[in-house]
Amino acid sequence: MQDNLIRIFDTTLRDGEQSPGATLTSAEKLEIAKALAKLGVDVIEAGFPAASPDDLEGVRRIAKEVGTAKMGRSLPPVICGLARANKSDIDTAWEAVKHADQPRIHTFLATSPIHMQYKLKMDPEEVVEQVREMVAYAKTYCDDVEFSPEDAGRSDPEFLYLVLGEAIKAGATIINIPDTVGYTTPEEFGALIAGIVANTPGVEGVIISVHCHDDLGLATANTLAGIQAGAQQAEVTINGIGERAGNTSLEEIAMAIRTRRQYYHLETNIDTTLIARTSRMVSNYTGIPVQPNKAIVGANAFAHEAGIHQDGMLKNQNTYEIMRPDMVGLSHSKLVLGKHSGRHAFKNHLSEMGYELNQEELDTAFQRFKELADRKKNVTDIDIEALVSDQIAQPVEIFSLEGLQVSCGTMGLPTATVRMVGPDGTVHVQAAIGTGPVDATFSAINTVIQAPNTLLEYSVNAITEGIDAIGEVSVRLEAENGSIPKRKSPQNNFFQTRTFGGHGVDTDIIVASAKAYLSALNKLLYASGKYGQYANNTKLLQTSEQAA
Amino acid sequence: MQDNLIRIFDTTLRDGEQSPGATLTSAEKLEIAKALAKLGVDVIEAGFPAASPDDLEGVRRIAKEVGTAKMGRSLPPVICGLARANKSDIDTAWEAVKHADQPRIHTFLATSPIHMQYKLKMDPEEVVEQVREMVAYAKTYCDDVEFSPEDAGRSDPEFLYLVLGEAIKAGATIINIPDTVGYTTPEEFGALIAGIVANTPGVEGVIISVHCHDDLGLATANTLAGIQAGAQQAEVTINGIGERAGNTSLEEIAMAIRTRRQYYHLETNIDTTLIARTSRMVSNYTGIPVQPNKAIVGANAFAHEAGIHQDGMLKNQNTYEIMRPDMVGLSHSKLVLGKHSGRHAFKNHLSEMGYELNQEELDTAFQRFKELADRKKNVTDIDIEALVSDQIAQPVEIFSLEGLQVSCGTMGLPTATVRMVGPDGTVHVQAAIGTGPVDATFSAINTVIQAPNTLLEYSVNAITEGIDAIGEVSVRLEAENGSIPKRKSPQNNFFQTRTFGGHGVDTDIIVASAKAYLSALNKLLYASGKYGQYANNTKLLQTSEQAA
Repeated sequence: MQDNLIRIFDTTLRDGEQSPGATLTSAEKLEIAKALAKLGVDVIEAGFPAASPDDLEGVRRIAKEVGTAKMGRSLPPVICGLARANKSDIDTAWEAVKHADQPRIHTFLATSPIHMQYKLKMDPEEVVEQVREMVAYAKTYCDDVEFSPEDAGRSDPEFLYLVLGEAIKAGATIINIPDTVGYTTPEEFGALIAGIVANTPGVEGVIISVHCHDDLGLATANTLAGIQAGAQQAEVTINGIGERAGNTSLEEIAMAIRTRRQYYHLETNIDTTLIARTSRMVSNYTGIPVQPNKAIVGANAFAHEAGIHQDGMLKNQNTYEIMRPDMVGLSHSKLVLGKHSGRHAFKNHLSEMGYELNQEELDTAFQRFKELADRKKNVTDIDIEALVSDQIAQPVEIFSLEGLQVSCGTMGLPTATVRMVGPDGTVHVQAAIGTGPVDATFSAINTVIQAPNTLLEYSVNAITEGIDAIGEVSVRLEAENGSIPKRKSPQNNFFQTRTFGGHGVDTDIIVASAKAYLSALNKLLYASGKYGQYANNTKLLQTSEQAA
Repeated sequence: MQDNLIRIFDTTLRDGEQSPGATLTSAEKLEIAKALAKLGVDVIEAGFPAASPDDLEGVRRIAKEVGTAKMGRSLPPVICGLARANKSDIDTAWEAVKHADQPRIHTFLATSPIHMQYKLKMDPEEVVEQVREMVAYAKTYCDDVEFSPEDAGRSDPEFLYLVLGEAIKAGATIINIPDTVGYTTPEEFGALIAGIVANTPGVEGVIISVHCHDDLGLATANTLAGIQAGAQQAEVTINGIGERAGNTSLEEIAMAIRTRRQYYHLETNIDTTLIARTSRMVSNYTGIPVQPNKAIVGANAFAHEAGIHQDGMLKNQNTYEIMRPDMVGLSHSKLVLGKHSGRHAFKNHLSEMGYELNQEELDTAFQRFKELADRKKNVTDIDIEALVSDQIAQPVEIFSLEGLQVSCGTMGLPTATVRMVGPDGTVHVQAAIGTGPVDATFSAINTVIQAPNTLLEYSVNAITEGIDAIGEVSVRLEAENGSIPKRKSPQNNFFQTRTFGGHGVDTDIIVASAKAYLSALNKLLYASGKYGQYANNTKLLQTSEQAA
C-alpha cells in the first residue's frame, strides 16, 4: 500500500498506562479516548482487556462510546485491544472491541532468541506455529488483525521475515515492529524495516507499523527512520509516557512531519492545534508531569516568544522559531470569565473548550467556578480545565471529605483535623500531628480509613500563574497488604504491582493534598472489591453498571 | 585528528542556564562545575562573561577553583567562556578564563541567510572578515579557540566551508556546528558534518564539534549522526536543559555510546556512575524538574527493576534491561544514619557523598540533620543531599525567616504570620490572609519586603518516599519594576528578562515554601544592587569579595 499518510496509532491507554502509577479509572480512560478521537488519531489502543475485568470493561466502554461516534471525523477511530497469542486473551479482546465500528485485535509473540529462550521457553518452530494459529484464530472474529513480533529489534532478521510472512498468510493486516527495549539506533531500525519490506512474503498487501521506546533518547528518530524505510503506521503516546523511559511521543512525530513536510513529504490526520490541551489532560489524569524542556509540550518549548514580543527587536520571527505556539494550541492564559459571569456564559465556554456536561455535572462545576471566582481575580481557561478535569477524575467517592483544619509553621507541632463521611453515612472526626501539614492531614485520614499503604510520590504544581494560583496535587501510593486483586502484565509472566494515583485541586494546597490522597485511597478501596456495595451513589459506577 | 574519544563539552552553566528561570547563583555554579569535573567532562563552558559583572565573576571563580584542580583526573577540565565575535566580549571572556590551567575562548557569528540579513544586518563578505579578525584576536590571548557559525543548520554549506576555512586559518582549534533552532533531521545533520569534513580547508588539523537542540525531539540522534560523520566533541547539558526544548542530554549521549559500544566503537571520559547524582544536583539548583519518563535520569527510567526482583520470575535480567541502574549511580534509598549518629560519622558520610564542608558549614548541616532525624525515622542519602544542597543554595540572606505560623483548611480563612529579621537587624512581624496557606504566607512576606514581583512558577516535590517525606519547593518570580540591572543574551540584541528562582526544603511544605520564596526574593534584592552593603555577613559574598 502506498500513500503519504502516516497512521497515528495511539497507545497512551495501553502502553502509556503501564507506566508506574499511571493507573487510570474507566471514566478517565473514556475522557482521554474522546480527546484522542478529536485530536485525529487513526487507531486507539484502548487497553489490554485480559489484564482484569476492570480493564475489559474500560476497553468495552471506549469501543461503544468512542468507536461508534464520528465527532467531526469521516469515520470513528479504529478501537484496538491487545492480546497475547493465546485463545483466551483473543476471546477477551474481541469481547471488548467488537462494539466498535472498526474493531482491531492486536496480538503479539516474542521472536528474539533471549525472549524465546528465557521467557517463552519455546523453540523457533513452536513460535512460528503459534503465531500462525493465533493470527488465524483472531481473524475468525475480526477482519483487522495486527501482529507484533516482540523484541523485534533484537531478533534475527531472517527469522522475522519467516514469522511475519506466516502471520500475513494467516490474515494479519498490520505488521508492527517494536523495539521493545529501546536498544536500536536509527540506522539499525531503518535497516530492519527496509529488510522486512524487501524480504517478507506478502508484505505488499499489509501496512508496516513501528513501535519504539526511548531508553537511549532515540525513539523519535527511530520511528522516523522506520517511516522513511516504508512504515505507514506509528505507535505513539501522548507526552511519550510508557514503561521506563516511555514510548515515542505523538506530539514529536506529528510536529516533525508537519514542520519538515518539505523533507518527509508525509502527512498525518492529527489536528495539531489540540496537542497542548490533550497533553495537559493526560498529564492531569495520569499524574505524570511534563518537564519544562520537553519538546513541543514542555512549558518552555515556546518560551522564546515572550522575550521576542516584549522587546520587539527581531524583525523576522523565524530567526529563532521553527514552529508557532498556536500550531499546537498554545495561547496565553487570558481572563475569560469573572465572578459576575452567568451560568449560560459558563456553559457556552465549557462547550467551546470541548467539555459537554450533563445538568448535574454542570451545576457542580458552576458552583465550584463561583467559589473560585470569589477567591481568585482572574479565572482562565486553564483554571476552568483544572476544575472540570478534577471533577471528572473524582468518581468513586467511598469516603468523602467534609472539612479540614490545619495549623503548621515553625512555632508548634503541625496538626490537622479532618471531618469525613464514610460509605454508610457515618461522620468521622479525627486529629493527628505530623512532620508537616501534609503528613498530619494524611495521618488524620489514615486514622479514619484503615488501609495500610506506602506513599510513593507527592507533587504540587501551581497550574496558573500568580500568587493566588490554583494548586494541583498528585499522589501515588501502593497498598501494603495483599488484598488488592491482581492485574496481569502483557509482557511478563508475573502480575503488576498495583499503585494508585490521585489528584486534587484547590487554591489551598493542603486541601488539594487531602483531596488527592483521598482520591487515591478511594481507588484503592474500590479495587479491593470490599466497597462495591456502598459505592452505587456515584456517577461513575452508575454509568459502569448501565454499560455492563 | 583521529581517535575514538568523544570529548564531552558541557554547557549546562551557559546554554542550560539560559533556560527561563534557571538563574543560578555563583555558589551554585561553582558546586555544579565541581560536580561536572568529577563526572569527567572534558570541557566546562562556564558562562557568557559579557552578560553582566556577576556572570564574569562566576566564570572567573570556576576557572580559578575548578580549572586548576585535578580532582582525581589526569588534568583539570578545560574552562571555556563564550564571547560574541567582538573585541569587548573576547576581552571579557579572557579575563574570566585566563586563571584556568587550560583556558578556552568560544566565539561565534551567525552564517545563515536569515540571521545575517535580519539579525546581523551584514553581508556574507563582512561576516567572513569579522570571523577572521575575531578568531585571530582571541588567538592573541589563548591557544585554544573555538568558533561556531550560529544557525549552521540553516546555512549554505558552500558558505560554511569558506567561513570555517578562514576561522581555521586564523587559528581556531575547534570548529563547532550548532543546529541552533533544532530544525534538522539526523540524515541532514550527518550530511552537513560529512560535507564540512570533506570540503573545509585545514579541517584535518582541528576537532569538529556538534551542538544540537531538541525542538523536534531529535537532539540525541542528530548529535550521534554528527559524531558518526566525523565530529569528536559533543556539546551537551545535564538533563538536556536549555532554551525552549533544551539541548542534547549529556546522559543520553554518554549512555548511548556506552551501551552501544559494539556499534559506535567510541568512548567518553564520563564516569557514568555519577550521572544520577549530578542530574539531581542540577535539577535542585535550577528548579527545573526531570519528568519520570526522561531517558536515563527519569524516576521511571529503571522502574522495571522493582517488579523483576520482587517476583523473581525472570531468569535473565537482560530480557527487558539494556542498562543496569548501578551504571548511572542509582541505588535504592537506604537508611544510612539515625538520630544517634555522631558528628564524625556524619562528616565521613558527607565526604563519601562528595561534599567537603568547612567547620561552620558542617556545624549547620549537622544541626539540621539532627532536627530532621528527630522528625523522620529513616534519613537517607537523598535527604542528606537535600539538606546540604539547600544550605549551599541559600547564600545571600538579606532578610531571614525567624518564625512562621499558619492556619488553613476548609473551615476558615487561610492565615499566616511571619517573623523576619531585616538587613539592619530589625525584627518584623506581619500577618496576612490569602486564598490558601502559601498565598497567605507569601503575602505576609510581601508586607515586610516591598519588592513587587509576579510569581511565575511554584512546585513541590516530595524528594523522599514515605508519608513523612522532606518536601522541596521551587519558585520562580519576575521583578515587576525596572530596577533590576539587565543582563545580555548572547544570541539576541536585546536584554534577557531577569527571573529569580528559589528553593527550600523542610518536612513542612509551607515552611519550605516560605524559604523558597524568601530565597528568590533575596536574590532579587541582591540583584537590585541596593542591599550590597547589608549583605556582607553572608558566606557567599565574603567569598566573592575575596575573589574579586
